Amino acid sequence: MTAPDGSASPADQRLAVEQAMAHVSALISQGHQVVLTHGNGPQVGNLLLKNQLAAEVVPPVPLDWCGAQTQATIGVLILNALGHPAAVVVTRTLVDLADPAFAAPVKPIGRYFTEAEARRFEQLGQTWRAFPGKGFRRVVASPAPLEILDAPAALALMDAGYTVVVAGGGGVPVARQADGSLRGVEAVIDKDAAAAVLAAAVRASVLIVATDVPAAVEGYGTGRARPIGRTTVAELRALQAAGHFASGSMGPKVEAALRFAEGGGRAVITSLEHIGDALAGATGTVVGW
Amino acid sequence: MTAPDGSASPADQRLAVEQAMAHVSALISQGHQVVLTHGNGPQVGNLLLKNQLAAEVVPPVPLDWCGAQTQATIGVLILNALGHPAAVVVTRTLVDLADPAFAAPVKPIGRYFTEAEARRFEQLGQTWRAFPGKGFRRVVASPAPLEILDAPAALALMDAGYTVVVAGGGGVPVARQADGSLRGVEAVIDKDAAAAVLAAAVRASVLIVATDVPAAVEGYGTGRARPIGRTTVAELRALQAAGHFASGSMGPKVEAALRFAEGGGRAVITSLEHIGDALAGATGTVVGW
Repeated sequence: MTAPDGSASPADQRLAVEQAMAHVSALISQGHQVVLTHGNGPQVGNLLLKNQLAAEVVPPVPLDWCGAQTQATIGVLILNALGHPAAVVVTRTLVDLADPAFAAPVKPIGRYFTEAEARRFEQLGQTWRAFPGKGFRRVVASPAPLEILDAPAALALMDAGYTVVVAGGGGVPVARQADGSLRGVEAVIDKDAAAAVLAAAVRASVLIVATDVPAAVEGYGTGRARPIGRTTVAELRALQAAGHFASGSMGPKVEAALRFAEGGGRAVITSLEHIGDALAGATGTVVGW
Repeated sequence: MTAPDGSASPADQRLAVEQAMAHVSALISQGHQVVLTHGNGPQVGNLLLKNQLAAEVVPPVPLDWCGAQTQATIGVLILNALGHPAAVVVTRTLVDLADPAFAAPVKPIGRYFTEAEARRFEQLGQTWRAFPGKGFRRVVASPAPLEILDAPAALALMDAGYTVVVAGGGGVPVARQADGSLRGVEAVIDKDAAAAVLAAAVRASVLIVATDVPAAVEGYGTGRARPIGRTTVAELRALQAAGHFASGSMGPKVEAALRFAEGGGRAVITSLEHIGDALAGATGTVVGW
């Protein structure tokens, strides 16, 4: 059951989570301590659209609230599906108000609208950009994640034996204000970048970036496409610099893997079906020890 | 800043949370271990309305998802405002599919609509009821909370020194299915009833029901109104049986206080400004040891 635009129904989302958690549950059953994080792009897109369609009747909530909302809805689906003691920690991620991303928002979110609609939303203070042949789409700031503020709570739960779900959607962006207080800010945080920061904060030994392909690919879309297996930080950085990874898809995953490997960990990029093998080093793109 | 119907803007909600947390923060600073829970009625009403206004474009999410969403948005506001180590636990509350509430939904939620609108929503499987002079309002099941499923995670965090926010909005209702799995169900859980179950689960010594009046009142709205101070379970049950407490407001609070006192605890019903005094027994309606 999908909406006219193809977005997944709640029942579809539940099934997708159940399928994903079967793989995660197997890892836990093998004795691995698992920290989970997840994206939320389609869900935030839906929430923004509802905000906009209802704006004249219900006060729209800021973008950071939409991100928070998805931590709980996806979190409950995960808890119900996992079958192991688990907890979802509502998670804030610290960003810097001086991050250049705030002055130049570039991250597209939500659906395409007509120019007339985009102009109307711009009057609410939003930034919209034309995507030739596709329409207009809102762009927002995607500042760098500096710290997973609620990671210490996750660590306490891990110590107590819980599988934890943390920093869903990259975490709810908050920034320290001039008066020292913390406040949510209208931004999105790249989920892969947040995962690398989270993995370091919870002292993970391996960061698995689960996606829909079995490995990162060199020369993707060319006649010389080649899946990347065991590699080194230097080699992967060189491929990245040569433009092998698309900015909206594999790029952030490779960058997260590199960051984590550079910090002394091992990172694996592979498909969800292979995360069990990934820990044995038998599949996927592997970088680090 | 409020919407045409008076619902609070996100900025208003943040300010209200900041004011409330100043009182809670003072309690924590005095050395009390605090477990927080909260309601979510207006927020769920807004989310339902957005669902309905956008239903032809975005797949509506079920009622239990709306409740989940509010745990995270209100939770982040609390975390930012509290100024003490704190964590928000996304919380499910177990209910029974055989609860008679499912066969006869009576809890009104969301806003009033016209009869024509209500009839249209009924075709989506919802139950709507006429409220003479006011219009039509959706009614949903409000089953009894049997168990706060994620209370053990809250206890682990408490042991680690965290103030925890648990079971917001009464918790996300989930029920065990015929195959043994847990699944969210379209219902709302009374926040006061859930608070009594939560207080027992986290072994609280005192349950404070913070509201907007300094005490429960005998003969409310009559010429013989009298605030109820120190009382006994027997006396409060007698006043309850005589109809002194309105079903939609003070009734559930008195029932929660009685349940907790009957289980061996002390319960206090008072206004947020008085929660500090409440622990000293110097204010509010007090029942139990």
